[in-house]
Amino acid sequence: MKYVNFRMLDQENLELGLLVEDRILKLKDLLENFPLDLPENMIGFIEKYEEYKPLIEKSLANKKLPVIPVNLVKIESPIPYPRRNVICLGKNYLDHAEEIKSIPGAPSQVPTQPIYFTKIAYPAIGQGDTILNHKEITESVDYEVELAIVIGKKGKNISKEMAADHIFGYTIGNDVSVRNLQMRHTQWFKGKSLDTCCPLGPSIVTKDEFTFPPDLEIESRVNGELRQRSKTSKLIFDIPYIISDLSQGLTLYPGDIIMTGTPAGVGFAFDPPKTLIPGDKVECFIQGIGTLVNYLEK
Amino acid sequence: MKYVNFRMLDQENLELGLLVEDRILKLKDLLENFPLDLPENMIGFIEKYEEYKPLIEKSLANKKLPVIPVNLVKIESPIPYPRRNVICLGKNYLDHAEEIKSIPGAPSQVPTQPIYFTKIAYPAIGQGDTILNHKEITESVDYEVELAIVIGKKGKNISKEMAADHIFGYTIGNDVSVRNLQMRHTQWFKGKSLDTCCPLGPSIVTKDEFTFPPDLEIESRVNGELRQRSKTSKLIFDIPYIISDLSQGLTLYPGDIIMTGTPAGVGFAFDPPKTLIPGDKVECFIQGIGTLVNYLEK
Repeated sequence: MKYVNFRMLDQENLELGLLVEDRILKLKDLLENFPLDLPENMIGFIEKYEEYKPLIEKSLANKKLPVIPVNLVKIESPIPYPRRNVICLGKNYLDHAEEIKSIPGAPSQVPTQPIYFTKIAYPAIGQGDTILNHKEITESVDYEVELAIVIGKKGKNISKEMAADHIFGYTIGNDVSVRNLQMRHTQWFKGKSLDTCCPLGPSIVTKDEFTFPPDLEIESRVNGELRQRSKTSKLIFDIPYIISDLSQGLTLYPGDIIMTGTPAGVGFAFDPPKTLIPGDKVECFIQGIGTLVNYLEK
Repeated sequence: MKYVNFRMLDQENLELGLLVEDRILKLKDLLENFPLDLPENMIGFIEKYEEYKPLIEKSLANKKLPVIPVNLVKIESPIPYPRRNVICLGKNYLDHAEEIKSIPGAPSQVPTQPIYFTKIAYPAIGQGDTILNHKEITESVDYEVELAIVIGKKGKNISKEMAADHIFGYTIGNDVSVRNLQMRHTQWFKGKSLDTCCPLGPSIVTKDEFTFPPDLEIESRVNGELRQRSKTSKLIFDIPYIISDLSQGLTLYPGDIIMTGTPAGVGFAFDPPKTLIPGDKVECFIQGIGTLVNYLEK
């Protein structure tokens, strides 16, 4: 199942929907006539998904429901306001760890332990949204396509064997990075956390759509030009390891987002650099999830 | 004014209060009879403080109000669930930057730019609460007393001259750090973010109680033994600089918490190390704010 946060083009309020090809079914239509409270937002939906899921399946099988063509709506980030900052892994594809070795100021080793940092998503921006160019403070806004895990079940000290049980699904993250600030401040938080630096979406695909851990093609393009291309099976620290290691001593909650790292081909690793310029179109593609499209402010 | 989050010892629900010496006045008593909605929590209170403040002053001047002795309540963290992770500065006192130079694996230079990272507060624990010892994964739980800024007004690209205008007040933070994880993962987030690693409190003192930037004695003690002692005027990057620099490109919101760094005397800088052992009592004192007391789990 693919779940989206959307709003009708002429309206302000967010709604939850099920995306089926190029049509959306509203969750409130799917869940009407059942004696339960509708979820307030995507996090509330995820928290009670085990209750909602069989009802949604029942509605899909039995009822003729109104559908909305996707071109009549604005797709927003599936989780615009996560409970905590988005947790990210640094240098978690070997080819990316290798490509940035020679960049002055960049971290120089292939990691032997996961590198965790956070980025602010307040809000995470969604499909088609504009990434601010922050031109007063940078000329090096960069893209990083990443498979993002969405946690489904609260847990701590999770074993690798139980990791899948704690996942709700997956979405696409663009770990937009302001390189001069990332380097200047040593720790990466600030350079990863400027306003609009966290595009997410377009949908969350539930885990049952994929094998575990998922082995998916992952790509990014800038103005149509292929920049990054890999497979999510190439993660140095794989998803079971990440969830287990991260959750040691640290409780994960439904709706938490973990970006798993980016493959080679980021802008600042090219010589000369190919970081984004105003007006650039960035497409982040992951097989089975879709394409997250954003634009750098003109 | 000193504001606290508290609950009566026999009750679960949190209440907001004004702390006057060793007595608490409930905000709902102070604000009753005024035609406005009571704040839902401390963040809501901070957002509308300009409205609430004159009414509170009026009530204090005119009315005889019920008071609660502080020993009849449990003081909780003033902001248990901030909107985003707590933002912290690393190595922001010269003596601390110097003391950790020689520790293997520790960052070795005095910073020429602020080092920003984040820690999870979900929840931030409060006065008297227990810090988990996380004994399965560490033997190096450390203390770091810090002056914590509480943001009062939304803003971005704030000038140093306008920084004070965006502050609501100050509290005490203990940037509890799990040293082996802080080093192992390169970026500091994980080692700073285990459950219960963010004690905050006991109260938030409004900015008008201090000169700007505040020059306050800051100390920590473990089982009564003085470990850290400095003045907040010794910050390498001072409060106007931090707020201005951090807010370039990044919107700050009411209730955001910024921990400004810790002075020399942290446990792992002693030879042999004096990190916490189970049952230790940690006291973090800042002049004019109070003492935040926590215990490492036995």
